[in-house]
Amino acid sequence: MLTVSIAVIGPGVVGSALVRQIFLQTDNLCQILRSKVKLVSLANSKTMHHDQNGISSATWREDLTQKGVPVDLEVLGKQLQEGNQHGCCIVVDCTAHEAAPDLYTRFAKRGIHVVTPNKKFGAGPLERIRAFRAAAQESGSQFFGEATVGAGLPVMSTLRSLIETGDKVIRVQGILSGTLSYIFNTYNTGAAFSDVVTSAKEKGFTEPDPREDLSGLDVSRKVVILARQCGLETDLSQLKVESLVPEQLASSQTSVEEFMQKLPEYDEQMAQRATVAESQGEVIRYVGSVDLENRTCSVQLVSVPREHPFAQLSGTDNLITFTTQRYPSKTPLVVRGPGAGAEVTAAGIFSDIIQVIRTHRNY
Amino acid sequence: MLTVSIAVIGPGVVGSALVRQIFLQTDNLCQILRSKVKLVSLANSKTMHHDQNGISSATWREDLTQKGVPVDLEVLGKQLQEGNQHGCCIVVDCTAHEAAPDLYTRFAKRGIHVVTPNKKFGAGPLERIRAFRAAAQESGSQFFGEATVGAGLPVMSTLRSLIETGDKVIRVQGILSGTLSYIFNTYNTGAAFSDVVTSAKEKGFTEPDPREDLSGLDVSRKVVILARQCGLETDLSQLKVESLVPEQLASSQTSVEEFMQKLPEYDEQMAQRATVAESQGEVIRYVGSVDLENRTCSVQLVSVPREHPFAQLSGTDNLITFTTQRYPSKTPLVVRGPGAGAEVTAAGIFSDIIQVIRTHRNY
Repeated sequence: MLTVSIAVIGPGVVGSALVRQIFLQTDNLCQILRSKVKLVSLANSKTMHHDQNGISSATWREDLTQKGVPVDLEVLGKQLQEGNQHGCCIVVDCTAHEAAPDLYTRFAKRGIHVVTPNKKFGAGPLERIRAFRAAAQESGSQFFGEATVGAGLPVMSTLRSLIETGDKVIRVQGILSGTLSYIFNTYNTGAAFSDVVTSAKEKGFTEPDPREDLSGLDVSRKVVILARQCGLETDLSQLKVESLVPEQLASSQTSVEEFMQKLPEYDEQMAQRATVAESQGEVIRYVGSVDLENRTCSVQLVSVPREHPFAQLSGTDNLITFTTQRYPSKTPLVVRGPGAGAEVTAAGIFSDIIQVIRTHRNY
Repeated sequence: MLTVSIAVIGPGVVGSALVRQIFLQTDNLCQILRSKVKLVSLANSKTMHHDQNGISSATWREDLTQKGVPVDLEVLGKQLQEGNQHGCCIVVDCTAHEAAPDLYTRFAKRGIHVVTPNKKFGAGPLERIRAFRAAAQESGSQFFGEATVGAGLPVMSTLRSLIETGDKVIRVQGILSGTLSYIFNTYNTGAAFSDVVTSAKEKGFTEPDPREDLSGLDVSRKVVILARQCGLETDLSQLKVESLVPEQLASSQTSVEEFMQKLPEYDEQMAQRATVAESQGEVIRYVGSVDLENRTCSVQLVSVPREHPFAQLSGTDNLITFTTQRYPSKTPLVVRGPGAGAEVTAAGIFSDIIQVIRTHRNY
C-alpha cells in the first residue's frame, strides 16, 4: 500500500479548511486510493511542525504553535522526502506569497509533487516554471493548480482534458472574480457604481482595499494561468488590462477611505458605458479572455447581449466558457458556480491531491 | 515505457470518431503519458480484427472488413490481454447493446479496463455491476463512463471528485437530452407542441422514432447512472418517469407515421401546462433529478422560473446542476454545453482512456 505524506504550508482560512477536509476523508481515501494518507508537516509564516507518524486531527493547531520550530521550507521538503522515500510526497502551498513558489523546483528535485491555489506561481516568471518543469520531468513530480482559477470548479482539469484529447482551443473567456461578478450582476443603469462597490465591500465580497479587485490584477493572473495551460507563453506584462480604478485614485498614497469617498466622482463614466450597452439590449461585464486565434489575452469591461451566459449570472458566481473546435462559439462548454470561498477552494486543492496520488508512479 | 493496447468495439459514428481522435493524438499521448498507445483490436457486430503491432490509421476500416474474422468478444479479450501481459489493456465499448456489457466482468477478470458511452451497463442490472466491481477490485481494472451522461461534458468526473473530496451531494438535476432540450427551448405557448417535435425530427435531432426520446427512457438511464455514482442503488423500475408519449400512441403497433399524424390531438394538453407555467412567469422543462435527501429519482416535466439556468438554455445544450453541502441550492455547480454529437462523445470517451492510462498501476 502506497504511503502518502502531505505537507500543508499556510494553514489560513483555506489551508485550515483543507486540513479538516483531509482528516474527515482519511478513511475513505484509504479505501478509494488503496493508500495510507498522512498529514505529516504543517508550516505557517513563523513555525513548522513535522511528525512522520501523522499529525493529530485533534491537536494540529496547538502542535504547530507549541511544538513548532522556526520555519524553513527547504528543511520541510527534506524532512518530507526523507521520511517517506518510497512513497508519495506532496507539498500543498496554501499561501498567496512568493516564498513558497520559489522553492517548488527544489521540491520537484526531491520528487515531491506540488499542489497549490497560489496564483503567484502559475502567473509568475516563466523561467521559474521552466525550471520546475525540467526538474519535475526528471523526478516524476507533478504540479496541479485547479484552485488557482474558479476555486473548486472544474476549470483547469476541463481545459487539460480538452487539450489532451486533441481538441483545438479557440477561446477561453470568463467572469473570473466573484467580487466583480457581484458588482456587475448588481449594477444597473439606475444605480450609482460607487454604491454597488460600497455594498460589496460591506458584504465582505471585496478585499479590504477594493482596488485590489477593481484593478483587475487578480483576474489577470487567472488569465495568464489559463493562457499558459493552452500553450500560450504569455505573462502579466503582455496582457491588455482595463483597470476599473480611476487613475487619479490608483496611488497607494490614496487611502482606502479616500478612495471610497472619491469614487462617486467617477460614477458618471461608468453610467455612460452602461447606458450605451443598455441602448443595444446589452449589459456590461468584466471579462478575462484568452484568444488563441489572435494569441492575445485581455481583461476588460465588455458589453454582452442579455441572452449571453455572462449576462445571466447572479450573486458572486464565476462562469467560464471554453470555445473549441468541438465546442464552437454558439455552443461552448460552460462551467459555472461559486469561484471563491474556503470550502470550495479547499475542495479544488483536495481533488488535485487525489489526482496526484492516483497518478503517482511508484505504487 | 508502459505499453497500452486498446480495443474498440463498435466503430460506428462515435466509435469511428474516437478511432480518428486516437490516431491523431498518438504522438502527443506518448509524450504526455510516457506510454506507447496502440489500437490493436477492432470489432463490429460481425467481424473483428486484431493486430498486436497496432492497426494502421490508413487501413483500419478495410482491415476490419477484409482481414476480420467472425466476432467473438471473449476471444477479443483473450487476445488483448495475452498480447500485452505486462502493459495496460483497455476495451472501449462504443455499442449501445447488451452483448458487450455482459462481458465486462470477463474483461475485468483479465485485468482489462473498460471505458464506455454505453448506458446499458451503468443503468443495467445491479448484479452485473457488482460482479464487475468484485472482479475489478481483485485485478485492478477500472471502469469509466464519462460519455454516458452529457457526452464530453465533465459530468461524471465532477460528481466523482465532489464525492471523493468529502462533499455531500444533495441533488443532481439536469436537462440530459439534447433532443428534449431543443424541443422545450423552442416550444412556447404560441406554438403547437407537435410542430416543434416535427421540426426537431426534420432537423435530425430526434431518433428516427421520436417516441424513443419522448418516452424519457434515455434520460432515465442517465438519471440511474448519476444516482448510482452518488451511492443510491436504484434502478430503472424505481424511477418516477413522466413519458411525453400519449398512452394511446405508445404501442409499438402504432407506426412512426401514425404517431406523428396523431400527435397534434394532444397539443392542447401540453399547451395548458405551458400556459399555467407562463402565468407564473415560468417555463416548462423536461428534467431528470437525483434527490439524495429523499433518496428518490425522477424524470418529469417541471415548471421553472425564467431566471433558472434550465430556462436560459438554447439549442440542444445539456445542463447539469450539482447541489451539495459546499455548493448550496442558490449557487450550485453548473456544467453546460452540447451533450450529444460524435466528436464530443468520442472526446468524453478519450478523456476516460487517458485517465485509465494515467492511473494504471503497473508502470
